[in-house]
This record gives sequence, structure tokens and C-alpha cells, in this order.
Amino acid sequence: MQFVRPLPSYLVTRYHGWKATAYADNSAWYRRLAVEGQRPRAMVISCCDSRVHVTSIFGADQGEFFIHRNIANLVPPYEPDGNQHGTSAAVEYAVTALHVSHLIVLGHSSCGGVQGCLDMCNGKAPALEEKTSFVGRWMDILRPGFDRVQAREVDEAGAARALEKEAVLVSLDNLMTFPFVKSAVESGALSLHGLWTDIAEGSLEQFDPARGVYAAV
Amino acid sequence: MQFVRPLPSYLVTRYHGWKATAYADNSAWYRRLAVEGQRPRAMVISCCDSRVHVTSIFGADQGEFFIHRNIANLVPPYEPDGNQHGTSAAVEYAVTALHVSHLIVLGHSSCGGVQGCLDMCNGKAPALEEKTSFVGRWMDILRPGFDRVQAREVDEAGAARALEKEAVLVSLDNLMTFPFVKSAVESGALSLHGLWTDIAEGSLEQFDPARGVYAAV
Amino acid sequence: MQFVRPLPSYLVTRYHGWKATAYADNSAWYRRLAVEGQRPRAMVISCCDSRVHVTSIFGADQGEFFIHRNIANLVPPYEPDGNQHGTSAAVEYAVTALHVSHLIVLGHSSCGGVQGCLDMCNGKAPALEEKTSFVGRWMDILRPGFDRVQAREVDEAGAARALEKEAVLVSLDNLMTFPFVKSAVESGALSLHGLWTDIAEGSLEQFDPARGVYAAV
Amino acid sequence: MQFVRPLPSYLVTRYHGWKATAYADNSAWYRRLAVEGQRPRAMVISCCDSRVHVTSIFGADQGEFFIHRNIANLVPPYEPDGNQHGTSAAVEYAVTALHVSHLIVLGHSSCGGVQGCLDMCNGKAPALEEKTSFVGRWMDILRPGFDRVQAREVDEAGAARALEKEAVLVSLDNLMTFPFVKSAVESGALSLHGLWTDIAEGSLEQFDPARGVYAAV
Repeated sequence: MQFVRPLPSYLVTRYHGWKATAYADNSAWYRRLAVEGQRPRAMVISCCDSRVHVTSIFGADQGEFFIHRNIANLVPPYEPDGNQHGTSAAVEYAVTALHVSHLIVLGHSSCGGVQGCLDMCNGKAPALEEKTSFVGRWMDILRPGFDRVQAREVDEAGAARALEKEAVLVSLDNLMTFPFVKSAVESGALSLHGLWTDIAEGSLEQFDPARGVYAAV
Repeated sequence: MQFVRPLPSYLVTRYHGWKATAYADNSAWYRRLAVEGQRPRAMVISCCDSRVHVTSIFGADQGEFFIHRNIANLVPPYEPDGNQHGTSAAVEYAVTALHVSHLIVLGHSSCGGVQGCLDMCNGKAPALEEKTSFVGRWMDILRPGFDRVQAREVDEAGAARALEKEAVLVSLDNLMTFPFVKSAVESGALSLHGLWTDIAEGSLEQFDPARGVYAAV
Repeated sequence: MQFVRPLPSYLVTRYHGWKATAYADNSAWYRRLAVEGQRPRAMVISCCDSRVHVTSIFGADQGEFFIHRNIANLVPPYEPDGNQHGTSAAVEYAVTALHVSHLIVLGHSSCGGVQGCLDMCNGKAPALEEKTSFVGRWMDILRPGFDRVQAREVDEAGAARALEKEAVLVSLDNLMTFPFVKSAVESGALSLHGLWTDIAEGSLEQFDPARGVYAAV
Repeated sequence: MQFVRPLPSYLVTRYHGWKATAYADNSAWYRRLAVEGQRPRAMVISCCDSRVHVTSIFGADQGEFFIHRNIANLVPPYEPDGNQHGTSAAVEYAVTALHVSHLIVLGHSSCGGVQGCLDMCNGKAPALEEKTSFVGRWMDILRPGFDRVQAREVDEAGAARALEKEAVLVSLDNLMTFPFVKSAVESGALSLHGLWTDIAEGSLEQFDPARGVYAAV
């Protein structure tokens, strides 16, 4: 483990500032959260992208959101094959152990993962088609979304944005293939929500199933 | 998609508040981040747990951290078998596409996933041993850590804490099995860091490879 | 006063969001309310319970409801003994100074105070019978209700729900012992209303004196 | 009970609107709150005044705040005399049964109760000095605050505002006379906060014990 290095000093400095201020002001709550356990109201599945702030956009503090972040906020279909499925494990824990009431999939603009999928499906990214490309294989989850977008979009910018929004719908569809998600939704114990945010404009849209489109919240 | 529901109104209200304040105050930066793309200095791998605030503890704002969150902040070993590996995809993207300078694995106290692993390895959680348990199969990644902890710990509370810290080391070890991580570390382009935070006390420890122990930062 | 701490930052953040949105959109009305004084149409007496939202359930905005919240939405009998009676003071101010037109007592399901009263009256909560128990002495107000419920209910779940509804009636009865309430009611200047809401189902029932039962509104 | 009247139709109408919208969008959470019980992070003690919106100002939804509202947001001193003390009962329940982490006293501008206390202490409101005046006897709690304000204020508008802010401090001081509050504060399980809001301006100030003054949050 000789390759492990000390934390950069700028993070050490900021951590001590947090400890002396935000932690000190909230220590009673943080201690209670530790003793009583977490009881998050919602799970949020969002992208790893550094520009997506999942908590601040909703004024959420510690204890509110159970958060899974992966490339392009994707959920694969239910596949209980005994292999390792990190996203499925997170969903399983949130729904069956924590009993979250809301499951929110949050997509975003300028998503590098979605752009990679678009390039790959258009034959412009052979490296992503390699068996050894983890990003490529992960983005395979979004291929059904690409087919739907290709059928209706013309220019490339429009296609990228459409595919970002489609990624949220693919994930929502896949979530419903998990028996414990489906039964929780059907019993009224869980509600699913599809969002997309524009990083530049700070706007937020949600999918409206009645009209089949996204609309500003 | 008729199962998709509107966003709860308390989140809508809070979003509009964020838009009018934090977004308005930072729109110049957010627009630039959208146009120029993200350029995060570090990737953080942490747990989905709602009590772990990855950004606030380090005073980090949008654009700073590329964040992957999964159950128990685990990284599986390198396995380019053509299957979907969400964590490996996130690491690959951060290291080979974004060229992050730091890769931080952040563990925490009272981790439900680690406790589940402990119970499973001690034969107390047969449900987690089922092939269909996503959480159980995901926690298999930590089995090597359990063997090491079992060899030296006595009581159960001590074992849980030791295994939480071991989970970080298992992930760091596995990270080095990825050729692109190893070569970036060896060339000096990337440094790895192992942290563990106590939710109740707000304390933060880092692994010190010279002494083989965790110490307060 | 060194024990006073700064407001937790998540509330500071959310407050600034409110200031920039809801306040900004309504400042003309809020300024007028400040200059002209409040003129609420109704007083609502409800429980402190965090799950009872008195305003949202009725779409009420600032200026509409004069709200008193205490444990189990109780009103004690008229007792002008020179001691401090916070609930009586609130009722007196609402009726004689503000001349509200409606006085609504709102009970609710899963009420911890009512459950405590039930346990105490059944001899299962000796701590609540102590002279020093503020909750116990406060719940003494509901003892007449317990006697009526006990005379007709069989199982414990039924008794709790019946006593929650009885608490509203005890309060309404006690309100009529206040001379200024009684005369306002008799002159037609004030009407009294008894409600009970189920937190889980979001249902709302009101007491119908003609039939002597609660019925869905 | 023939004096009980049906709920005014405008409230019936609004309730049905809430049920079909906000309730429907949040029913999973509300059901969970009912089954699992409330776990509010904070207790707020505020005035009954219809112009003070305790939840909206902080973007708080059902389950977040345990709320006690009385005339002038007052807490009497600890007095375990076996009489009914509704405010003390609410504080006792919040601290010893719910273990809230924060206890916030929220004062406000144009407070009618505080103005009444000022008039009474200045000899201008003989009716409030009657033994039978519930409001007068309740405002006696604030008399120590009046003495301190009188020693330093000159004009009447200044005196009213100063007494509103003093009411928060009197309540905070009295809270510390409750053994269970004091021990929770001293053990770090509970933190106390003093706020004052201007209804017209939507501003919010908090008491800073280090400087002994209120400052904008």
C-alpha cells in the first residue's frame, strides 16, 4: 500500500474549517443520525459529473437523500445472475432496507457518457466498442434509448440532449423490471420521478407521462 | 411510463429557492463549466449513505469533484469481461478521459453495507448469500477484507469498524489492478488516498501506509 | 447566553431561497399585513406533531390562520385563577382582539400525546402520573374523554383512534366554558368546528353534531 | 354539541385540491411517517400570529419541525407544580421523547402580545392587569424582559422591537431552567437558537451570544 498518499493539504484545511463550523453547528443532529440510523425520504440516482450538485439544488442536508452516482445516471435491467451489480445493489438497499418513499433519476446537460454513447452508436467511437471498454459496455444500457432518439432527431446537438433525457426514461423503465421496485410502486409505498437539469442555465425539467414530454418544474 | 409522478412540491419550492440564490450568484461559473466542460481535480468514491456529505466536508463546489457513490464505497478488481461494471466505468472515465489528479476512497462509520457483509460472512445473514441478493453479491468484494479483520479483531463492534476501514483498503488495492490506474500512479499523474469518517463525531482519518494504520488528518 | 448557537447552515440556505422567491413574489402583501395588522378569518388549534401541516392542507397563506399548536390540540376549561394559561390566552386573543369568525380544532391519527393519555389512564404509564410530568398533567385534560371512550370501545387500536377524536370534542366542550367564546357563538359572530385527519391517508373528517359522529368532509 | 358547525366550504374546496395534488404526490412519504412515527430534527416555538410562516420560510415539509405556537413565542420557567403547563409539556415531549437536535425560538415584528405587555408594564392597559386576563397573565412571563428593555430604550417603537427580541431571550433563558433541556444542551444532544423575523421585510436575524446582539443570518 505504499502507493497511498497523504490527503492534499487544501482538503485538510477545508475539512478543519467544516469541522469547526458546519459540524459544530449540527453535531447534535449528526450524532443522532449515527445513533438512530439514517431514514432518508428519497433516493437520487445521478451522474458522477462534477457539475451536478444533487443536494444543493434541493436544499438537502445530511440524512435526506440516499445517493447513487454513476456514469450517465443509468440503471441496468433486473438481472439476478449472481454477478456484481453495484447499481442494482444500491436500488435494492434503498427500496427493501431503507424503504425510501421517492426514487428520483436526475439527468443533466453536456453529459460525457451520453455523448460517448451517441458517438459509439453512430460508429464514430470504435474504442468504446471494444470489449475492454468499461465505459462502452456501461453505455450499452442506453442503446435502446439511442434507437428511439435516432428515429426522430435530426441534428447532433438535438440528438445529444434528447438522448440525455432518454437516459432517464430508460433507467425508469429498467427500474420497473425489479420486482421489489414494481411492487413498492404498485402498493403506493414508492413513487418514481424523472428529472433533467441544464447545468448552464440552472433549469430543471421533469418528465410528464400524461403528455410524454419534459416540462419545466 | 404512467408510473412516473410529479416531483414532490417541497423539492420544487426548494429548487426555485436555489435557482434564485445559489444559481444566480454563480451562473457565470456554471455557464463556463457547461461551455468549457468539467475539469475536476479529484474523483471521490464514497457510500450512498445519506449521512455522508462528500462535498460539504471539503467545502467543494460544482466542478471540483467527480463523484461515484455506491454501497460501501467499493471498487471491484479489474475484470474486462465485456459485462457491465458501473464502478469500473466511472474510474476509467475519471482517469483516462478527465485525468483527475487525486482518487479518494471515503469510508464511514455505521455503514449498513459493511455490517451486512460482516453478518453474511459470520453466517448470520443467509438471505444475503442468495444468488439473487444484489447487496450480498456486491459485498462479496469485501470478503478478502473480512478474512483479514477476522484474524485480528475480537468483539463485534470492533470488527465492524475495522471492516469499514478495510473496505477502503480493499478498494485501493483493487484500483491498482486497473492498468490505467497503475500506470497513472506510477507516472506521478495520479495519487490515491484512503479516508474514513465518523458520522457522529465529524472526525476524519486517513490511511498512513508507512505505519499501516489510520490516523486523524 | 453562551449556550445559544448559530442557526444550522441548511436552514440559512433555505431561508435565503425563500427570501428570493416566495417573499419576493409576495412582498406587497406581507408589507401590507405588517402595516395594517393581521386580520385572520380563522383560528386553528392543532397538535405540535411534525406530520400535521395545518396550512398546506387548506392552501392557507400568511394572514389567513391564527394558529395555536400544543400537545394533542387540547383546550383546558375556563379557569381565571391568575395563573399562566397559554392556550386560554391564545383563544382569548383570537376571539376578543382579532374577532376570528371560525375556531377550528384539528385532531390527527397516531397522536403520541393521546396514546400517552390512554396508557396513563390504563395504568401502564406510571411516569406520566408523576406530579412532575408536564405531559402527564397536560393530558389530564383528556381524562373525561377517556371515560367516555372506555365505556364503548373494545380493542386498543380502536380506543386510540376514538380518544383522538374525543380530544377534539373535549376541547370544543371546554371552549364553550369561556364566556367570551360562548357569547360570540351565540351571537353568531363565531362558529366552532371539529376536525380529525388521518396522516397516512390524507383523509379529513368533521364532527357532525346532528348525528353525533365524524364524517368525511 | 349542537354549536359545532360544518367546515366553511372554501376550506372544504381547498382541502380536496390538496388531497388530489400535494397529498397524491407525497402519499408514500406520509404513509411512511404514519407507520414509522415522526422523527423531527428540530422543534420550533413561534407566535400564533397568522403572519408568521414557520415552515415555508425554511422550506420545511411534513416531518421536519415539531411546532409549538403560543402568544409571543414565550416559554415560562420550569415549574413542576402539578398544574397544566402546555408549553412545558410540548418542550418536555420534544426533548425527552422525540430527542430533537435543535430548539429554535422564533420571534417576529409587530407582535400584538409583546405590544400588550409593553402597554401593561407602562400602566396603559389596566384590563390586561386584571386577574381574569389570560393574555395579561401569560405576558407576565415577559416582565423581566421589560425591565431590561426599559433600562436602555427611549422611544416606543424602539421599545416594542427591543421587547420582541427580548422575548426570545427570556424564553431561551427559561428553557435552560428545565433540567432535561439543560442536560441535553450540556451533553451536546441539543442546541438552542434565537431568531427574530421582520414580517414586512422578510428579513431574519439571529442572536449572537458572543456579541450580545442580533445580526442578519
